[in-house]
Amino acid sequence: MVKQEIISLSTKNRCQWIDISPNVQKVIDNCGIKNGICSVISLHTTAAITVNENADPDVETDFFKKLAQLIPQREPFYRHAEGNSDSHLKASLVGLSTLVPVTNGSLVLGTWQSIYFCEFDGPRNRHVSVSIIGE
Amino acid sequence: MVKQEIISLSTKNRCQWIDISPNVQKVIDNCGIKNGICSVISLHTTAAITVNENADPDVETDFFKKLAQLIPQREPFYRHAEGNSDSHLKASLVGLSTLVPVTNGSLVLGTWQSIYFCEFDGPRNRHVSVSIIGE
Amino acid sequence: MVKQEIISLSTKNRCQWIDISPNVQKVIDNCGIKNGICSVISLHTTAAITVNENADPDVETDFFKKLAQLIPQREPFYRHAEGNSDSHLKASLVGLSTLVPVTNGSLVLGTWQSIYFCEFDGPRNRHVSVSIIGE
Repeated sequence: MVKQEIISLSTKNRCQWIDISPNVQKVIDNCGIKNGICSVISLHTTAAITVNENADPDVETDFFKKLAQLIPQREPFYRHAEGNSDSHLKASLVGLSTLVPVTNGSLVLGTWQSIYFCEFDGPRNRHVSVSIIGE
Repeated sequence: MVKQEIISLSTKNRCQWIDISPNVQKVIDNCGIKNGICSVISLHTTAAITVNENADPDVETDFFKKLAQLIPQREPFYRHAEGNSDSHLKASLVGLSTLVPVTNGSLVLGTWQSIYFCEFDGPRNRHVSVSIIGE
Repeated sequence: MVKQEIISLSTKNRCQWIDISPNVQKVIDNCGIKNGICSVISLHTTAAITVNENADPDVETDFFKKLAQLIPQREPFYRHAEGNSDSHLKASLVGLSTLVPVTNGSLVLGTWQSIYFCEFDGPRNRHVSVSIIGE
């Protein structure tokens, strides 16, 4: 069985992450699949999906600060006129999609894990595809 | 239902990306699956798969230039005798596989998204596995 | 058909990778699925999963040395009190999950490919989720 849904969200900053685990769990709750795999996919080229820690908000701060130090918004050699070459690279490095197992109707996440939408060129309105395959 | 196929391609440069969305869509066209998930997987350790922008070719230029600045081909401490330690690291950072939803027989890609094969140690002949699971 | 299992493993160093291809193949051997997709997912926020070279151990050395140079354990601006902000970032960059096709009951891996559990904050006891979907 396959169920697919699009989640919409709005970001507030140029770079931030948003915990979308509750949104993804809601799709699973409504789809009737109890065991399988859930794929969560960014439909943009300057935003990514990852799984990371949900306990200490300093993790988010350090994550984006270090990434910005490695891949600054401006480099003398960038040619892409939109000025967001850094966002395109960060999106591909963090990755556009992630997979989470579904068991007994619930996302299987580690104790400190949440699914994050990673905005690298906000604020924008964004869309995430959730696909659940299973039985 | 599960359908799998191998795509073959040849790269021309040491580092470049190739839009393989049409190749992947052709596999879907031939497989009879209308709704599901398509996984696209590099069968190499120095080449990756990502999704990124297909509109401005400067995105590709900036992407590989910045990556090369972060992870140069030569470092005094590299020990791997083949001289492609940078390619191995870049492949794992960009990621060996990506997922794209399939709806009504078509890849679900955002407006500016294409699926890219990322060569980090070319030119070479390369293979990509495409697996579609759905119904 | 969906089959899921948890693999347990212990790491010995702060940063290292462990070839878990045999463990994953054993799950496939026991599950009865012949063709499909296998997803391998880290249930932690400071450990990742990747596919990389299994022939020359210098690849592992160079991989972790270069990553540590890019993302050192200490930065004056890190605020996360556990002192492992680098591990969180490395985990998301390498990625928490990977996909491998399954054909005729075997993982489809390239000649030099193995599936690696990447520890970025060991030594620890760790868990990996393996989900196989297919028929």
